Amino acid sequence: MSTAPLRLALVGLGNVGTGVAQVLMHQTDRICHRSGRTIQLQRVVVRDLAKPRELSLPRELLTDDWQAAVHDPNVDVVVELMGGIHPAREVVLAALAAGKDVVTANKALLCQCGDEIFAAARQSGRTVAFEAAVAGGVPIIAAVGQSLAGNQIQTIQAILNGTSNYILSQMLLEHQSYGDALGQAQQLGFAEADPTLDVDGTDAAQKLTLLVQLAFGTRVPVSQFHVSGIDCLDQKDIQYASSLGYTIKLLAQAKLVQQRLELSVRPTLVRQDRPIAQTHGPFNAILLEGDVVGPVWFSGRGAGQLPTASAVLADIIDLAIGRSQLTFRQFDLWGARPAFEVAPPSELTSRFYLRLSVEDRPHVMADVTHILGRHGISLASVIQPESPEVSGSDAVPIVPLIIMTHRTSVGALQAADAELEALASIKTPRVCLAVAG
Amino acid sequence: MSTAPLRLALVGLGNVGTGVAQVLMHQTDRICHRSGRTIQLQRVVVRDLAKPRELSLPRELLTDDWQAAVHDPNVDVVVELMGGIHPAREVVLAALAAGKDVVTANKALLCQCGDEIFAAARQSGRTVAFEAAVAGGVPIIAAVGQSLAGNQIQTIQAILNGTSNYILSQMLLEHQSYGDALGQAQQLGFAEADPTLDVDGTDAAQKLTLLVQLAFGTRVPVSQFHVSGIDCLDQKDIQYASSLGYTIKLLAQAKLVQQRLELSVRPTLVRQDRPIAQTHGPFNAILLEGDVVGPVWFSGRGAGQLPTASAVLADIIDLAIGRSQLTFRQFDLWGARPAFEVAPPSELTSRFYLRLSVEDRPHVMADVTHILGRHGISLASVIQPESPEVSGSDAVPIVPLIIMTHRTSVGALQAADAELEALASIKTPRVCLAVAG
Repeated sequence: MSTAPLRLALVGLGNVGTGVAQVLMHQTDRICHRSGRTIQLQRVVVRDLAKPRELSLPRELLTDDWQAAVHDPNVDVVVELMGGIHPAREVVLAALAAGKDVVTANKALLCQCGDEIFAAARQSGRTVAFEAAVAGGVPIIAAVGQSLAGNQIQTIQAILNGTSNYILSQMLLEHQSYGDALGQAQQLGFAEADPTLDVDGTDAAQKLTLLVQLAFGTRVPVSQFHVSGIDCLDQKDIQYASSLGYTIKLLAQAKLVQQRLELSVRPTLVRQDRPIAQTHGPFNAILLEGDVVGPVWFSGRGAGQLPTASAVLADIIDLAIGRSQLTFRQFDLWGARPAFEVAPPSELTSRFYLRLSVEDRPHVMADVTHILGRHGISLASVIQPESPEVSGSDAVPIVPLIIMTHRTSVGALQAADAELEALASIKTPRVCLAVAG
Repeated sequence: MSTAPLRLALVGLGNVGTGVAQVLMHQTDRICHRSGRTIQLQRVVVRDLAKPRELSLPRELLTDDWQAAVHDPNVDVVVELMGGIHPAREVVLAALAAGKDVVTANKALLCQCGDEIFAAARQSGRTVAFEAAVAGGVPIIAAVGQSLAGNQIQTIQAILNGTSNYILSQMLLEHQSYGDALGQAQQLGFAEADPTLDVDGTDAAQKLTLLVQLAFGTRVPVSQFHVSGIDCLDQKDIQYASSLGYTIKLLAQAKLVQQRLELSVRPTLVRQDRPIAQTHGPFNAILLEGDVVGPVWFSGRGAGQLPTASAVLADIIDLAIGRSQLTFRQFDLWGARPAFEVAPPSELTSRFYLRLSVEDRPHVMADVTHILGRHGISLASVIQPESPEVSGSDAVPIVPLIIMTHRTSVGALQAADAELEALASIKTPRVCLAVAG
């Protein structure tokens, strides 16, 4: 190898860090050959030096002092795999200030502190590579930032959270309840002990933010997205959707509609014959539509030790070759172009699935359809499953009413919902889910 | 823009050339912004200057003299979109010799003359970019060459010929005959007037050659592949496969099995629930399995004016940024690493689907299963559809016999087939198709 070695400090030796170190140590020849130079593990920062580890690393590589590792003059690249905001933010900023390039898989960090980090990188002339931050092993950052650079992306439609997708698959295919499916996901390591950010849509929204920034040159805080999670879903809705020909997926979407960006992350009914409906288990899937290429489709494991390590390794190799440096300079991260306007969530339109719990007596259907009609919402189909005749009780039975609407806006639906809530004959829960266009 | 403009000579203004020129002219701002410099159409080489064209180009750009264009000192990059071997080969070699970088979508050229062209590029220190040569708008060259560089690819399983896939979809979904489906593909522009190279598997094999070279560092002439096309397929086989739960696809496969490469392009039964079985119409799909990332899946339009233009534009932008130059230097195109051994086609193993036309009388089944058994081929299932009782005729009726085998080798099957051919009770055609593992 003619060029100098590329020397890495790995900060964080958890699941992904261990995967990266493992490949670097066991496939050294391959990684160096692909990089055109020696890739050398110079420092590995861990929290607890005494902790027993599955991977045996030379003792002298390990340190619990990230400051020392980041400022080590023999380190060229800092690979941040700690996760979380602190001290990951401090590590990355210190690395950039010390003239090191950075590889990170930390979408929460880039979503929350991206402006600061990208500006710091730009100022110090360094590079931040983050292929692993979105969709794990699926090379979607490279696709949006490089391979489809001749296109204006028109649509992103994606499953970006493997945990939610695993739970939804279990609910659909094994008829598990939400709680049981979540428990099983935790047992198998597909869900964290605290799964809140996965199941409430936050994680997917953070990843969508990064894709949107690259694809549209527009930085949109998650607070401007229409975000809801799968934690509200009932087994019933999975089954009703299925009988209507749909599968419910936690869909992250960005669409350019008349030069405005429509952004949402929400459980969405997807027609069963679409590839995205058939993406099951802990997989991610991303459909991109470019104005030149048309639809292009990507799928693979969106998380996990080795799939994420694969993306981190791609970034390390790209840095070694010098490609990342060129790519990063060219990314639409600086707001250099006029940003697209973001449509207010209430103006997002789609068809909707409604499940109401209504009293089984005259006029209820008329009341419901009257309210919807008043808000300009027309019905595509209505199903009221036949309920068993109840005798010997004076209580009015409660029956489900499933309505598929034609295209309408979130705002119209919310206004109608407020009126439905006021009807004594309509009980909770009132479920309302978007249908993918 | 601080950097000098990148000046292009477009050689060939057919379908794809027109698409590229169109985007360059109508989306100039976007392409230049993404490239970080001005991209300038300097020369457009056409065969016939007088031919009326849908795209109006400034008259002074057009020339019918490719030599002049390629040697123009004001040209930095030659974009070869003529197709075919001659004079495409001469154009590319002249461009490299004249110190120009080259972008090409010409898989036939790279498959046939790749050694010569890559060596010439290396010698002159220039770059050949060819994202558009495989799978049109699907960025599969970038995926194999860059994004999955941390992996040893273990498997490539792909639909790489949109024409064949369109025909197979029509045969399956519309119950068309092979001839009718081909005719319709030609009418819609999905098939050439002479579709031989598409339907006989050659085109897919040429594309697989390029992917294999990048993924395994091994250059294998198409003659060493096990290649057959869809031109032998009968509507009956589509339907029998379907009733068994399979869809027939023209599958291009490369597998690393015990450090040997198994290569094939052939009509293959794929389980209906696999994504590749659900890729219909003129789409391409590629499943890659890496030893780190696991399975990753790509799909999109594999041909056509704009999808292919999207890939050509990505290469132009990459050259403008300077990324292609780094990538090309690093590609496994030089045979620098020990190549993998290629398994002889007869040693490829899989399950198989057999359709025999047999006389409907005693002993035939025993004869067939005896021959198969003697070659170590065991049966997974046998279907002999009930045939109508024929009265008033002395002729022995001919009935189909459908056999699914367990895993066996192409060689064993060919040997058994030679014996079946010798049986008087077995008529033509004898159909034998692989089943995807």
